[in-house]
Amino acid sequence: MSPHQDHSSGVRLGGMDSHAYQEWVRTEKTCVFVPVGAHEQHGPHLPMGTDALLSTAIAESVAEGVRAKVAPTFAYGYKSQQRSGGGDHIPGTVSLDAQTLINLTRTVVGELLAQGVQNVVLVNGHYENYQFLYEGVDLALADLGPQKSTDRAVLLLSYWDYVSDATLSKVYPDGFPGWEVEHGGVLETSLMLYLRPDLVRMDRAQNHPAAEFPRFDRLPVVADRTPASGCLSSPAGADTTKGELLFEQVVEELSSDISSELEL
Amino acid sequence: MSPHQDHSSGVRLGGMDSHAYQEWVRTEKTCVFVPVGAHEQHGPHLPMGTDALLSTAIAESVAEGVRAKVAPTFAYGYKSQQRSGGGDHIPGTVSLDAQTLINLTRTVVGELLAQGVQNVVLVNGHYENYQFLYEGVDLALADLGPQKSTDRAVLLLSYWDYVSDATLSKVYPDGFPGWEVEHGGVLETSLMLYLRPDLVRMDRAQNHPAAEFPRFDRLPVVADRTPASGCLSSPAGADTTKGELLFEQVVEELSSDISSELEL
Amino acid sequence: MSPHQDHSSGVRLGGMDSHAYQEWVRTEKTCVFVPVGAHEQHGPHLPMGTDALLSTAIAESVAEGVRAKVAPTFAYGYKSQQRSGGGDHIPGTVSLDAQTLINLTRTVVGELLAQGVQNVVLVNGHYENYQFLYEGVDLALADLGPQKSTDRAVLLLSYWDYVSDATLSKVYPDGFPGWEVEHGGVLETSLMLYLRPDLVRMDRAQNHPAAEFPRFDRLPVVADRTPASGCLSSPAGADTTKGELLFEQVVEELSSDISSELEL
Amino acid sequence: MSPHQDHSSGVRLGGMDSHAYQEWVRTEKTCVFVPVGAHEQHGPHLPMGTDALLSTAIAESVAEGVRAKVAPTFAYGYKSQQRSGGGDHIPGTVSLDAQTLINLTRTVVGELLAQGVQNVVLVNGHYENYQFLYEGVDLALADLGPQKSTDRAVLLLSYWDYVSDATLSKVYPDGFPGWEVEHGGVLETSLMLYLRPDLVRMDRAQNHPAAEFPRFDRLPVVADRTPASGCLSSPAGADTTKGELLFEQVVEELSSDISSELEL
Amino acid sequence: MSPHQDHSSGVRLGGMDSHAYQEWVRTEKTCVFVPVGAHEQHGPHLPMGTDALLSTAIAESVAEGVRAKVAPTFAYGYKSQQRSGGGDHIPGTVSLDAQTLINLTRTVVGELLAQGVQNVVLVNGHYENYQFLYEGVDLALADLGPQKSTDRAVLLLSYWDYVSDATLSKVYPDGFPGWEVEHGGVLETSLMLYLRPDLVRMDRAQNHPAAEFPRFDRLPVVADRTPASGCLSSPAGADTTKGELLFEQVVEELSSDISSELEL
Amino acid sequence: MSPHQDHSSGVRLGGMDSHAYQEWVRTEKTCVFVPVGAHEQHGPHLPMGTDALLSTAIAESVAEGVRAKVAPTFAYGYKSQQRSGGGDHIPGTVSLDAQTLINLTRTVVGELLAQGVQNVVLVNGHYENYQFLYEGVDLALADLGPQKSTDRAVLLLSYWDYVSDATLSKVYPDGFPGWEVEHGGVLETSLMLYLRPDLVRMDRAQNHPAAEFPRFDRLPVVADRTPASGCLSSPAGADTTKGELLFEQVVEELSSDISSELEL
Repeated sequence: MSPHQDHSSGVRLGGMDSHAYQEWVRTEKTCVFVPVGAHEQHGPHLPMGTDALLSTAIAESVAEGVRAKVAPTFAYGYKSQQRSGGGDHIPGTVSLDAQTLINLTRTVVGELLAQGVQNVVLVNGHYENYQFLYEGVDLALADLGPQKSTDRAVLLLSYWDYVSDATLSKVYPDGFPGWEVEHGGVLETSLMLYLRPDLVRMDRAQNHPAAEFPRFDRLPVVADRTPASGCLSSPAGADTTKGELLFEQVVEELSSDISSELEL
Repeated sequence: MSPHQDHSSGVRLGGMDSHAYQEWVRTEKTCVFVPVGAHEQHGPHLPMGTDALLSTAIAESVAEGVRAKVAPTFAYGYKSQQRSGGGDHIPGTVSLDAQTLINLTRTVVGELLAQGVQNVVLVNGHYENYQFLYEGVDLALADLGPQKSTDRAVLLLSYWDYVSDATLSKVYPDGFPGWEVEHGGVLETSLMLYLRPDLVRMDRAQNHPAAEFPRFDRLPVVADRTPASGCLSSPAGADTTKGELLFEQVVEELSSDISSELEL
Repeated sequence: MSPHQDHSSGVRLGGMDSHAYQEWVRTEKTCVFVPVGAHEQHGPHLPMGTDALLSTAIAESVAEGVRAKVAPTFAYGYKSQQRSGGGDHIPGTVSLDAQTLINLTRTVVGELLAQGVQNVVLVNGHYENYQFLYEGVDLALADLGPQKSTDRAVLLLSYWDYVSDATLSKVYPDGFPGWEVEHGGVLETSLMLYLRPDLVRMDRAQNHPAAEFPRFDRLPVVADRTPASGCLSSPAGADTTKGELLFEQVVEELSSDISSELEL
Repeated sequence: MSPHQDHSSGVRLGGMDSHAYQEWVRTEKTCVFVPVGAHEQHGPHLPMGTDALLSTAIAESVAEGVRAKVAPTFAYGYKSQQRSGGGDHIPGTVSLDAQTLINLTRTVVGELLAQGVQNVVLVNGHYENYQFLYEGVDLALADLGPQKSTDRAVLLLSYWDYVSDATLSKVYPDGFPGWEVEHGGVLETSLMLYLRPDLVRMDRAQNHPAAEFPRFDRLPVVADRTPASGCLSSPAGADTTKGELLFEQVVEELSSDISSELEL
Repeated sequence: MSPHQDHSSGVRLGGMDSHAYQEWVRTEKTCVFVPVGAHEQHGPHLPMGTDALLSTAIAESVAEGVRAKVAPTFAYGYKSQQRSGGGDHIPGTVSLDAQTLINLTRTVVGELLAQGVQNVVLVNGHYENYQFLYEGVDLALADLGPQKSTDRAVLLLSYWDYVSDATLSKVYPDGFPGWEVEHGGVLETSLMLYLRPDLVRMDRAQNHPAAEFPRFDRLPVVADRTPASGCLSSPAGADTTKGELLFEQVVEELSSDISSELEL
Repeated sequence: MSPHQDHSSGVRLGGMDSHAYQEWVRTEKTCVFVPVGAHEQHGPHLPMGTDALLSTAIAESVAEGVRAKVAPTFAYGYKSQQRSGGGDHIPGTVSLDAQTLINLTRTVVGELLAQGVQNVVLVNGHYENYQFLYEGVDLALADLGPQKSTDRAVLLLSYWDYVSDATLSKVYPDGFPGWEVEHGGVLETSLMLYLRPDLVRMDRAQNHPAAEFPRFDRLPVVADRTPASGCLSSPAGADTTKGELLFEQVVEELSSDISSELEL
């Protein structure tokens, strides 16, 4: 269905049995990835699960390379904000509040570490999640106590921070409009065309200028500031080749960075 | 990979775009299913995602029949308890505490209803979740307020309550050992053999008598009371035919019950 | 006032002074019972404190036999649910939400254990409480830390799980309608007639068929599914003799089970 | 057992059935008392349930006079503080934290008001509870919303604020040592001798000067600042006659004040 | 601007750099004061920041004398109550709920202690705060654990408890009306006239009898029970000389008490 | 003490009396600024209150121009993170957890809006706060309800987003190192030299290359990644002139933006 090869079968914790897991924890240097997404509107041409699908695909591909496992994805994320995701007022988006996302992170990360997993890597695919994931990790480590937490490491990252300048200039030959409007635009659309073309409807894509927002957030939101498509920039120009470039480059740098940092 | 036909493509909300979703909410009698599972040890022959996989497969199949949609699965559940799941002390299981599961339910159900979805059905696949899902639903409806909540309905159910006596007597020709020990036993194993045979390792299955527990819970648990396999009864006798029977019978009765109750 | 002899005087912690308590904790193998009830409608013939009264009476009687003490009863319980208690929408019932009941349990159990009490037994008399008591106990033990919690034991049980089949067949000579509809029916009414006949008004009892509920919970509840009496089965046939049989048999098995488990 | 006549039978909500309760709410001007106590050491001569017993007895007696009902007592209270109760470090005392007591109050008061009860009166018997009860009431009223809360009234009081100067001078002929050291002293002991002489052990009472504390609280407490008895002043001089005087005078003024304020 | 000399420059932690702070913690016996106020109406002649300004000024003056430092003031306090502050219904007052004030206290006190600060002193200037500060301190010490908390001391006090009888008789030559009505009255006004005369508008002060309240709190409040000025007693008679007397006497006794208790 | 003129006297809510405040709310278009800072190490040359001082000074200056008022500053902020503030492990920094900062924001913003204030502007001076302030505002508006919240506006911004490119190129003539390392560097130091030179110790400033961090956060932090100074870039080159330029330019654009958006 996709030119991208599915890496999921061997790396998902949800497909592993507990006896094999215990053996793995006992005998190897262990690392578990937790993909974090959102259920958020991404315009008329991309599915609402986009952030979850992308962070999961990247996490699974990196994990396969560094002999890590992938825990079940957090399919719901923090509230969509107007200046990065269009806003939480648009029907379809189903968001968690801060406390729920913090507690979810705290519990899952905490339980993995308490069982002896040495490294946990949260791979974020939805901008708004980041600080709440951070708080969840910080609380999980406090729960473990200083003794136990010293030989553990939790990494937290957003996948787009691994897109190189060289890649950006190929994906956006006319100039990169900025990360803040990359919501339903060329980057996400290209990645989806590469990974899950069955879920992309380019015939429904709307071409419009990138959204412009003030330097403040206003709540309640002025709905008109979000383009009618729900996207913050146009997906025009997205294609599978760009998706492949983005995906493979990010996976490569991320793999290298993590295996170096964690000595996997 | 499985004799069971995958119903997921058309019914997952995560694969739907928000414009199509808004159109659906505006024009149809809407119902969204939320499958709820767990990430819990199920012995050496079943994967840790069993409860999530089963509740999702059932929800998707029923949803297809009643023109409903399926929201992203809750892949983590409440703490595994010794008398129903072997206990939360067994590595591999990653559980949520009560507050987190309640808040997750409250938020997701509440957001769906607030957007105009008329009916939400939680399909539970992990015994220990039930009361916390109930509390989450109750709080979500209180948040909505009495005016808005009167024309909405939330159903909450566990799929095994739809296994008929006729089916049980075929699945357990030597007598049903009881729901309380159906953890990693013939029922769950047969369903997995039918739905996801690629994730079942019958060669690793352990045959042992059903666990016997006292009439109380003791905490901290006496670990020896859980069989070494982690299963509460033996999967011996599980097969694909039984899985098909269970799946199809449950889906049929569940579909009939829900469409009748909600007039779908 | 009652054919049942009151066992409360010697076993209530609320009637003991702290110097005697400290001496007891220092010199004996200590066990404290915590009865847990509800303030819930039980039809026109039983008082709203029924669940609290029954769990307290049973706890006091067992405690006297095993040299335990009884802490003040939790007089309020979790929300009454339609399929087990008629539903929380019926005026008179005053229920706690999940968080409050969990925290109450966590605090009381935690403080007792922290003071050196070795064993705590929660005796539940209201179905809906169980999972929240469990969470409270689990959190209290986590608060104590692994070192301190290893030599402590907390038992959690519902008294009706100790009613034997032999007793059931005497109490229900025409067949047991099932625990799920034992709300305000023959069992509770007989126990109250034996223990607190002054609070039972058999002249107000309503005779009607047992309630029949679907296999799901629906919220907001469809009020008509609860019989007008508020009871889920008829109390017709309840009498003091059955109450005595139930009470004495449960107390005997519970005493035996607990003293054996805890080596009291 | 006591020279005091028990007023409990007719006024306890726990002994009333829900049909009678609904009739009462529908047809009368309703007022429900909630007695609030503590489970706290009161020296070697008084039981740990003293605060709960006293607030309950006063609430029941007043309620009988003003045609009110009495909800189940809050038997556990906020943490005992050194300058008013000796301190929470003394074994025997089992205290709730702030959040639990606030939530308990919020829920119980809120449910009573939501059912149509017009007035709720919290009768406090443990100094440390007061501010947390206040917060619970305030949150319950906020939950109800401004419309519903305007025609309801919640009163919150501590019973000792109703002891008159005339009574004080009779109970303490040598001068009143001050409310702050009235813990296990002449007032509480006299009341208990009048109401529950079976639970008082005057032969164990210790005679010592009133405790003197600095003008600050220090945490962790310096344990030696609490007298060895656990009482903050001596019970010497307590007798049944003083208890009767205290009880009857407080009940009379409280009844008058409440019926006047609430027009009962 | 004021006859009072500003002591703030050398003692505020907010004006200190972290390298100097670390040196201080490493080499000296450390004590940090935390002033706690409120943002609360104080009638037409005093500013809403009165409680924060007074507790800060006292804390800074005492701190200078005992070589302590002063952390940033808690400028918001618990809900104003009618019988001590006029009530939270009066616009202008901005109050925290219990949970927020508890958590604020818990975090700030806990972090200071965890960094090696040996003593923390909370100087309260708003009656309603006290019990919530107490809970915050108690939870912070529980978080630290028994080992670490034994050599730390946290003191909690309200500054008015250090006003001597001699001072009171000079400030109120016609008799002290009682602490409960000292809200916007002679004491607070005199202190403000001494410390921040630029913020006092004696021309707007209203002269009226002291408020009289019942012995209970009623919620929702009966607004008329609060005098129209918002003050609970008249500021007539307040002057700078009284302010100086109050301030200097309180600072002297407080300094002496704290340095003696903490051996500073 | 500073070349900058203090604008605080007329705009602080803490210095205003409640009668004047009520008159203001009743008769004018009202806007209240809430400055938000942190108590965080800023190297050896800047005080720990830097973020609070800067956000307060900017808020007060803007407020004076647009006829707004300024509520008491949030002097404590969210946990310092290594990549933006050096990290929370450095003694001196005292941080709030997410829940506390969210609740503080929710309460203060909510109370202001509920009293009739039409606009609230949060002026943030500490990067890590932003998302938690956002959540607090979102919850406060949900508490108000849709009716009341429609005619209110809350703006949330960080002051550095108003530094223009022209200003940046003058402040950093050798090139701007990036916002992520502007912690204790030229920008903050110049602003402090302009506004509070008495609190800056340029003789203690350390000159070192800008910190370089990986593209992930790691917890627990690897302490060595933070420069020994605690600053993320060097303050060398900071001066009062740059401070004045920064301050005046930001105040001007911010004033213009806010008065235009809110029609003040």
